Amino acid sequence: MPAPLEFYFDFSSPYGYVAAMRIDQIAAKHGRGVEWKPMLLGAVFKVAGSQPLTEYPLKGEYSKKDFARSAREHNIPFNMPSKFPLPTQAAARGVYWLQQNAPDKAVLFIKAVYTAFFVEDKDISAPDLIGDIAAGLGVDRAAFMQGIESAEIKARLREATEDAIHKRGVFGSPFTFVDGEGFWGADRLDMIDRWLTRGGW
Amino acid sequence: MPAPLEFYFDFSSPYGYVAAMRIDQIAAKHGRGVEWKPMLLGAVFKVAGSQPLTEYPLKGEYSKKDFARSAREHNIPFNMPSKFPLPTQAAARGVYWLQQNAPDKAVLFIKAVYTAFFVEDKDISAPDLIGDIAAGLGVDRAAFMQGIESAEIKARLREATEDAIHKRGVFGSPFTFVDGEGFWGADRLDMIDRWLTRGGW
Repeated sequence: MPAPLEFYFDFSSPYGYVAAMRIDQIAAKHGRGVEWKPMLLGAVFKVAGSQPLTEYPLKGEYSKKDFARSAREHNIPFNMPSKFPLPTQAAARGVYWLQQNAPDKAVLFIKAVYTAFFVEDKDISAPDLIGDIAAGLGVDRAAFMQGIESAEIKARLREATEDAIHKRGVFGSPFTFVDGEGFWGADRLDMIDRWLTRGGW
Repeated sequence: MPAPLEFYFDFSSPYGYVAAMRIDQIAAKHGRGVEWKPMLLGAVFKVAGSQPLTEYPLKGEYSKKDFARSAREHNIPFNMPSKFPLPTQAAARGVYWLQQNAPDKAVLFIKAVYTAFFVEDKDISAPDLIGDIAAGLGVDRAAFMQGIESAEIKARLREATEDAIHKRGVFGSPFTFVDGEGFWGADRLDMIDRWLTRGGW
């Protein structure tokens, strides 16, 4: 079986959300899986010399319109959160804990967290909310809450973020690798689809 | 006849080049023309708080690869210029002069200037080269050279750049408006194509 697409994302990224809702289907069309790799965009931005899109003059206004437009094209519900951006450590650690301890719940959890933030306007920086989302999927809440505070899982997220920046050259979210070839942005999913169809160019 | 697509671009923009080579065809498919609006990206960047893509850490390396990949997908020749970015006043003024004085040559001129820069690695900041390109299209060289130094044409470019920033919210190149709806980037041409097919969404 060919290698999965590697999907780097931050939970506070609107384009990460839009891409997360589409990538499984695009990967599956080409017989591929998806390896989900949450990271911390704040650390990425420090190295890349950038900041959240919404904070740039002109580009900020465009971005907010474009988030909604990009979602609407694919009938993906989207509401700009009232508090944005938010810290995403708890959610990101939750993914790495689930990937080790309840792997069949990890993707459901990712989509539930994204929906809580970009549809329901919930504060996903709160560990309690993240715990509720996991529990709602049938995960042992106490084990999960302990897991996302463990040194091992904290280190796992730190390493994933460091690797993204220093080994893979990731500078934004989402960032998808197809057999090592990197594609930045939700608007590149269609290019990835064509890339997989043609076997690159 | 429906309104033309308004295409804002800078001659020193690799994605502007890639989009310039495709947009006529996409517009024509939907019974549209293209209104070509060169501008000065340096002035745009000052307001937008940004800089040339190639100067950002990480993103710079990605961009150079992606310029070539974006061109290659559509069989558009591309060579990263050895001197980049370059001032583009002479070329941009040339377009506005031609649009007034030899309108049937303006688009040919745009594509010839872009090709000189992004295929032949010529220094398009040099007014003499720009004059040669115009003359090669059968334009009166002396009138053209005088025109691009005229106060009227200089003001025309200044106004186009100011309008782009302050009236249209343009913060990068290329930037295309479809019936007032703005799309940033060469990778949005396919979205524009879908937008025109569906009549928006």
